[in-house]
Amino acid sequence: MNKIITISREFGSGGREIGKRLADELGFAYYDQEIIKEICKETGMHEGYVEGVAEKAISLISTQFGHTFYNQQQIDVLVSQQKIIQELASKGNCVVVGHGCAEILAERNPFSIFVYADMEAKIKRCRAKGPEEEKLTEKELVRKIKDVDKNRKKIHEMIAPTRWGEKENYDLCVNTTNVEIKKVIPGLAMYAMEYFGNE
Amino acid sequence: MNKIITISREFGSGGREIGKRLADELGFAYYDQEIIKEICKETGMHEGYVEGVAEKAISLISTQFGHTFYNQQQIDVLVSQQKIIQELASKGNCVVVGHGCAEILAERNPFSIFVYADMEAKIKRCRAKGPEEEKLTEKELVRKIKDVDKNRKKIHEMIAPTRWGEKENYDLCVNTTNVEIKKVIPGLAMYAMEYFGNE
Repeated sequence: MNKIITISREFGSGGREIGKRLADELGFAYYDQEIIKEICKETGMHEGYVEGVAEKAISLISTQFGHTFYNQQQIDVLVSQQKIIQELASKGNCVVVGHGCAEILAERNPFSIFVYADMEAKIKRCRAKGPEEEKLTEKELVRKIKDVDKNRKKIHEMIAPTRWGEKENYDLCVNTTNVEIKKVIPGLAMYAMEYFGNE
Repeated sequence: MNKIITISREFGSGGREIGKRLADELGFAYYDQEIIKEICKETGMHEGYVEGVAEKAISLISTQFGHTFYNQQQIDVLVSQQKIIQELASKGNCVVVGHGCAEILAERNPFSIFVYADMEAKIKRCRAKGPEEEKLTEKELVRKIKDVDKNRKKIHEMIAPTRWGEKENYDLCVNTTNVEIKKVIPGLAMYAMEYFGNE
């Protein structure tokens, strides 16, 4: 059976960096932006729109009276996403970041990681990494961090009965507040391989 | 600065086993039952009583109208516990299990782990490890698992403003549902040392 590591994460916590470095360390394929590109190919929709639905934008999903509504295009993206993630995971050992991967791939017994951090650490990481975030005020950045996660939570709830970010849904929860990510990769990689060895 | 690993855990999740094995792997001192013995020495109280207050028994702490009351003896045990944990942690590198150690030692920047598992896995572990638990019916065992954790939560809330078991309060949360503990110790130990290397 393929060894699959899924990374779910709070925005700004460094989950993508953990996923990329873990894939490099283990010689696994790494899927993140590739998923978006494949959805675009399949649906013929624009990358910005697909990325918005699958990952980021709040405004694309409308909420009224406490209920969330999705239009047909949005549903097409989410259905296509599920299919593509399944196809990629069937190819070989891999690390998949975001896109509800832990839930979509649950039946393949992935090693599922959730990455999180304190707000202060997330702000610092956003400022250091994201050119887009550099222009935002502190208040705007906090709002963005919260909004992106709120959207991830919504998408999670569309595809799974569990709650996003609750430790019970993951095999390991990694707090990056006090760590330099590249330094903890060998330990994380070893833990993951020990986990798979157990199957 | 001493390297301190704190293990907080759900009852039946194997947190004690992780702590003991991690201490062996790293050559760190291991403190768990020793804390109880030291409290007994200091307070002159009986081991069963001390263990009850510090760890297990629910009936010793009375709850009325949603408020929790503690008697003087119970408070003496908890105060003594804090003092003893600080003394032990000042001696050298160590792993401390339970007793609100993550909160008591917070200022010493410990690497704090929370260990948890599904109810089914906890029942299985209790049956395999605890001779006391062998006699209980399934329903009684589930009740015991929930009650012990409820008490840990109460004690935690006495000594810290944070919430017990919430991932935000720990550096790493380890789900033991799908792992054989002894197999993941080298990876955990490596991660811990990488964490300390970062300080």
